[in-house]
Amino acid sequence: MDSKVLTDMKYRVWQANLALAKANLVVLTWGNASEINRDLGIIVIKPSGVPYEAMTADQMVVTDLAGNLLEEGSLNPSSDLPTHVYLYQQFKGVNGIVHTHSKYAVMWAQSGRDIPPYGTTHADTFYGPIPCTRQLTEDEVVTAYERDTGKVIVERFINDQIDPLAVPGILTIGHGPFTWGVTVEKAVENAIVLDEVAHMALFTEMLNDHRDVLPNYLLDKHYFRKHGKHAYYGQG
Amino acid sequence: MDSKVLTDMKYRVWQANLALAKANLVVLTWGNASEINRDLGIIVIKPSGVPYEAMTADQMVVTDLAGNLLEEGSLNPSSDLPTHVYLYQQFKGVNGIVHTHSKYAVMWAQSGRDIPPYGTTHADTFYGPIPCTRQLTEDEVVTAYERDTGKVIVERFINDQIDPLAVPGILTIGHGPFTWGVTVEKAVENAIVLDEVAHMALFTEMLNDHRDVLPNYLLDKHYFRKHGKHAYYGQG
Amino acid sequence: MDSKVLTDMKYRVWQANLALAKANLVVLTWGNASEINRDLGIIVIKPSGVPYEAMTADQMVVTDLAGNLLEEGSLNPSSDLPTHVYLYQQFKGVNGIVHTHSKYAVMWAQSGRDIPPYGTTHADTFYGPIPCTRQLTEDEVVTAYERDTGKVIVERFINDQIDPLAVPGILTIGHGPFTWGVTVEKAVENAIVLDEVAHMALFTEMLNDHRDVLPNYLLDKHYFRKHGKHAYYGQG
Amino acid sequence: MDSKVLTDMKYRVWQANLALAKANLVVLTWGNASEINRDLGIIVIKPSGVPYEAMTADQMVVTDLAGNLLEEGSLNPSSDLPTHVYLYQQFKGVNGIVHTHSKYAVMWAQSGRDIPPYGTTHADTFYGPIPCTRQLTEDEVVTAYERDTGKVIVERFINDQIDPLAVPGILTIGHGPFTWGVTVEKAVENAIVLDEVAHMALFTEMLNDHRDVLPNYLLDKHYFRKHGKHAYYGQG
Repeated sequence: MDSKVLTDMKYRVWQANLALAKANLVVLTWGNASEINRDLGIIVIKPSGVPYEAMTADQMVVTDLAGNLLEEGSLNPSSDLPTHVYLYQQFKGVNGIVHTHSKYAVMWAQSGRDIPPYGTTHADTFYGPIPCTRQLTEDEVVTAYERDTGKVIVERFINDQIDPLAVPGILTIGHGPFTWGVTVEKAVENAIVLDEVAHMALFTEMLNDHRDVLPNYLLDKHYFRKHGKHAYYGQG
Repeated sequence: MDSKVLTDMKYRVWQANLALAKANLVVLTWGNASEINRDLGIIVIKPSGVPYEAMTADQMVVTDLAGNLLEEGSLNPSSDLPTHVYLYQQFKGVNGIVHTHSKYAVMWAQSGRDIPPYGTTHADTFYGPIPCTRQLTEDEVVTAYERDTGKVIVERFINDQIDPLAVPGILTIGHGPFTWGVTVEKAVENAIVLDEVAHMALFTEMLNDHRDVLPNYLLDKHYFRKHGKHAYYGQG
Repeated sequence: MDSKVLTDMKYRVWQANLALAKANLVVLTWGNASEINRDLGIIVIKPSGVPYEAMTADQMVVTDLAGNLLEEGSLNPSSDLPTHVYLYQQFKGVNGIVHTHSKYAVMWAQSGRDIPPYGTTHADTFYGPIPCTRQLTEDEVVTAYERDTGKVIVERFINDQIDPLAVPGILTIGHGPFTWGVTVEKAVENAIVLDEVAHMALFTEMLNDHRDVLPNYLLDKHYFRKHGKHAYYGQG
Repeated sequence: MDSKVLTDMKYRVWQANLALAKANLVVLTWGNASEINRDLGIIVIKPSGVPYEAMTADQMVVTDLAGNLLEEGSLNPSSDLPTHVYLYQQFKGVNGIVHTHSKYAVMWAQSGRDIPPYGTTHADTFYGPIPCTRQLTEDEVVTAYERDTGKVIVERFINDQIDPLAVPGILTIGHGPFTWGVTVEKAVENAIVLDEVAHMALFTEMLNDHRDVLPNYLLDKHYFRKHGKHAYYGQG
């Protein structure tokens, strides 16, 4: 394997994990970010339970596409690795995944509710409600908890025919958010937006019991202002 | 054009944008500030989608009063430029405008409600409720969304006969706040106050379902303590 | 006047004001702290509307006990000076006063409610509910607003026979908190505690509609653990 | 006594107290952490009422297992020392204890409610609800308040047959949280988790009146993923 490509991947994944800490999305050692290189057949992910301030790029864990460790003397990967593996297998356009226990997203996950698209801050990144998974069965939890967390995520996107790149995140019920993107940097950005949107939606509901979600034409406007070939936000 | 004046404008607009980030009113690349020089016929505004930490004074975008780019090789201006242009055309005393997605202001905007003047913190800056616009129609959104965002803002000030310098800000429904002032520094300050007041009002309502807004004589007292010829707050 | 004593007073008042900013109790130029020296017949208070980061000890304003400026070329004192003056006249044991628009205290002030003593964090500093004043009449506001703000504060302590050193703070309705103490440092500390207690009480109510306030024997225990001759908290 | 062991204990207890401040769990001089060495028969605890920024390792107070001071010229120990002593006597596997007035935990303590296990963030550290003690009687408060605070804590664990190492913390009603662990570092970590979990649970309830707690099989899964001989989280 080209060692320069791998070094760069480790660096980016390390930076992505540090960005989660800097954005106050993680407490203690919670949270993890990973990146896939589909051509080389490798995934790089944060090690399990290592403090952010002591973590080095070098410690990022390398696995094959099934999640098997590829390097001698590697640290243990994040225990959520099987969820990442499953999502990479099912969501072909996704190259970076982030999981956190960020406060406001967790509050919604614990409430078992989708986050309604109350505003353009939401619509700029998520083209529709941010879904919440169903509860895993006892059998799923006992047998293959982390992989089946991936399974109930994908199930929701299939059942509701949602494009995972148009709604780049989900809440796993009673647990917390997973976000993703075409790069790991984009997955981090989506994790930041998700928590911010969750915070805003929480108190929007408190202010107005009868508030409306955005009309579809405004949801379209804001999402396509930033995404697709007619996008005109940013420096193109 | 006098290059010193332009350099100074770019510097002030750059500083105003950085002040939004420092006051925790913006996340990622959200938010924008602009300034107008009516004599020279120019507007200077933040470029679209540039990270705050990498932004330079030099990158501020210069347009004419209709929003046409005036400099070769300019970055794309903030996508909200047409809103700024429209507001400058209609609000003659305004020389600086700020737009953010600051959390607490957005919560109120998403709830579709005006912010009632519950206290003197509000009255010191906003002489009455902080209004929330109506929803734009599908036609308005599809045709000229950003300009018509300006249009529904101005419509509310005309319909309710509100002086935009006495109530220097508004919530655009489902979106977020715009604030303004006689300088861009004042527009930034008003954005800070608006978010703080939105936070306070949110939980004032939770504490007391039957709370009163300020009596008019106290609204008058606080507003005119800081504004107009009888003001006695500050160093005059 | 002994210039060393005055220089020290200015330094302490300046430091007290900076401490308010450091404790996140003030936004922009809001808030003010003062100290009295009853023997010398002087009050030192923050100037009005000066940004905290630019403020110097030198700029603190010196007045006599009626609030008249004593130094040539002095800046304007805080517009709340007459409230401080009135409180110093009525509360003989008080030598330092602080006023802020700190968020959580203001939420309660805007709701027009006393803060009930829900916990020992409250009882350690405030021996009973933190009172909220009545609304000033139009006449009071128009005639002598700032002095009469002092008047309605004192009125509440007299009517309810509260010792201002046992309950060293109040909410002025629709406005915000005043706190005080035997020193200006203690007044700052009480302002910090008041906002923290206001935050805790706000959500205590949300969690339990039927919560109790502390039983009197526990209120006594905590207050007298820290105050009076049987106190055993700290290095006394 | 081996002075190296004692110096190390003082250093760890000092660091643990500083970690509480760094994690924003304490205001002013509130909060305290202690460690026990059962072989040597000593407890080291924070002094009472000393500001965190001025505190030195040297100032940590050393007592015997009954809480009697062992060093000449020692500062006064935290007034909560008798609670620590009682807990060390009753909870044999516990070697570090932390007490704070952290905001969100206090809100629950003031509401008098156990924190239900709404999510995996809770279950990763607390294997079941986080209990809240009963109110102390007047007699208990007057006679031996701090020791009896320990007594009502232990009473709850005995009555409900809870293992203190499986649920390493409690809320003392109207007061605040105590947490513990096999080391003082772990007790600090548990204090951080408790406040975070309290925050999440508060707004989970606001979002959904009919939310469920975690099913037992998921509570088991998450707790035993991190604890016991089948744990697979971290670097083992």
